[in-house]
Amino acid sequence: MSGMKIGIYGYGNLGRGVELGIRQNPDMELAGVFSRRDPSTVRTLTGAPVYAAREAEKYADQIDVMIICGGSAFDLPEMTPMLAGCFNVVDSFDTHARIPEHFARVDAAAAASGHTALISAGWDPGLFSLARLYMNIALPEGKDYTFWGRGVSQGHSDAIRRVPGVKDARQYTVPVEDALRRVREGENPELTTRQKHTRECYVVAEEGADRDLIAKQIREMPNYFADYDTTVTFISQEELDRDHKGLPHGGRVIRSGATGRDGEHRHVMEFSLKLDSNPEFTASVLIACARAVYRMSGRGNHGCKTLFDVAPADLSPLSPEEIRAHLL
Amino acid sequence: MSGMKIGIYGYGNLGRGVELGIRQNPDMELAGVFSRRDPSTVRTLTGAPVYAAREAEKYADQIDVMIICGGSAFDLPEMTPMLAGCFNVVDSFDTHARIPEHFARVDAAAAASGHTALISAGWDPGLFSLARLYMNIALPEGKDYTFWGRGVSQGHSDAIRRVPGVKDARQYTVPVEDALRRVREGENPELTTRQKHTRECYVVAEEGADRDLIAKQIREMPNYFADYDTTVTFISQEELDRDHKGLPHGGRVIRSGATGRDGEHRHVMEFSLKLDSNPEFTASVLIACARAVYRMSGRGNHGCKTLFDVAPADLSPLSPEEIRAHLL
Repeated sequence: MSGMKIGIYGYGNLGRGVELGIRQNPDMELAGVFSRRDPSTVRTLTGAPVYAAREAEKYADQIDVMIICGGSAFDLPEMTPMLAGCFNVVDSFDTHARIPEHFARVDAAAAASGHTALISAGWDPGLFSLARLYMNIALPEGKDYTFWGRGVSQGHSDAIRRVPGVKDARQYTVPVEDALRRVREGENPELTTRQKHTRECYVVAEEGADRDLIAKQIREMPNYFADYDTTVTFISQEELDRDHKGLPHGGRVIRSGATGRDGEHRHVMEFSLKLDSNPEFTASVLIACARAVYRMSGRGNHGCKTLFDVAPADLSPLSPEEIRAHLL
Repeated sequence: MSGMKIGIYGYGNLGRGVELGIRQNPDMELAGVFSRRDPSTVRTLTGAPVYAAREAEKYADQIDVMIICGGSAFDLPEMTPMLAGCFNVVDSFDTHARIPEHFARVDAAAAASGHTALISAGWDPGLFSLARLYMNIALPEGKDYTFWGRGVSQGHSDAIRRVPGVKDARQYTVPVEDALRRVREGENPELTTRQKHTRECYVVAEEGADRDLIAKQIREMPNYFADYDTTVTFISQEELDRDHKGLPHGGRVIRSGATGRDGEHRHVMEFSLKLDSNPEFTASVLIACARAVYRMSGRGNHGCKTLFDVAPADLSPLSPEEIRAHLL
């Protein structure tokens, strides 16, 4: 039996994660990697063939689902609607404010071409979104909280690197333990941005750069750091490479709420992730979504979807009978 | 706009939980409670009307979904297939070994009558089952663990009450902290039944009863206690009523697994519940399932389902646009 044929569009950390992850899913095979770089210069980790991204359309009949591994800021808003014109697709679009617009564009393209698209997969948005939904339906009267970290935020690390005099940087998002404790105890506190997370920055300065000025510019950067308690620690490139080269992340969704005659019974639900590799775990979720997209497409269920629209059984390689026997 | 009309079949702790929970769901209304007792002797918490269970069929056109609140051992195997002959139904059948058989019987009845049935809803089976599935698809190579407690097991409390000389009893299932710690740290240990949970029994003995014999009979009871480290504490009826009258429960599902070139990156996922009232929380989940059943039935999606077959969006009172805007 031949498996689902998966394409990877974009070959950065996430694309490599998908490449490695497919090996854990015996019902799938990797048909090829599509890169915007010259294919002859790209060596894949598993020896998978590399094709030019601009020629992807030629491979439409050889690929059941294309997993699009681009960035949300610039790549996916263009790539996903375009590729949904000739492939079933999965992406990890995570710019929350722009999801309705992205959804509408992908839906139009996928519906017109008779394909199925699933956007905003991964862990947040993705598994955390599902946790929020299941928690909300189980506790309609309550309050939920999302905490991220301790983990590397690539967006914040990039923002630091754009500060003049900065050679390299790594930023960790860290949840505030006391806030976590209060939420877990069912206090339902109102928490400001500053009360929920702190930000730890490890910065390699260029020789002769004004470190005080760099630290001040980081701490005062709007949106990224100004609303947080931010610590800046200068280290050498060697230290950064040695101690901060991984991409760990994680976080938790917590909802507490009440039931009873008069709200006298309190309940706390929590879903947490502790990840050694953010891109590899995200890739793993995208791969399962590709399976669901393939099945939904086969049933003629076209257009744009999110994980909210996917019956959980469609994500699993097991049969419905096996799922009921082993997981129910 | 008139809401979904819900019936409650069986009026014990779970039925009362459903009655109270419906008030938290403005898109629903409680049409009535069906009891096997004489309706004139049953007072509901909210003043909902009570009808005779044996006359339920007469009310078929006044009820969109019947939530069946019976026990898994004796009630549900008969009730759910019978009621699926004239209602959309939801139950909380939790005898794992008998689920395939129950599923088949309910499926046959619901398919024949053109109704939708959802079985084995609640938290385990139910939300914990979903957690296991989502964790398995995200980490295909790993191992998962379910821990229950600290909480009251009604089945184990009942078993103690059947020991001669016992007047009343309450049993708590307690997870072993050291086992939890090892699982959370990603050790993937092999754990025996005894290594995962302990059992604490609070027992009221009849006057003059042989307490040593009672304790021995409890500790040696096969299936229930023999495979566990069990402590038996004798207390007075007053103490039991004062300190142990609630029905708290909870637990956690944990999966740890690996990704990467050679499994070098470890990940730990955890879903936990801490519940003041087991029956009220279970009821809350059944209510959300009734919403999904109503919608699936309206689309002609008949037969027997579990939560694995339900697109998460169908559980929510929010529109797809609202869900994407607020929960994604």
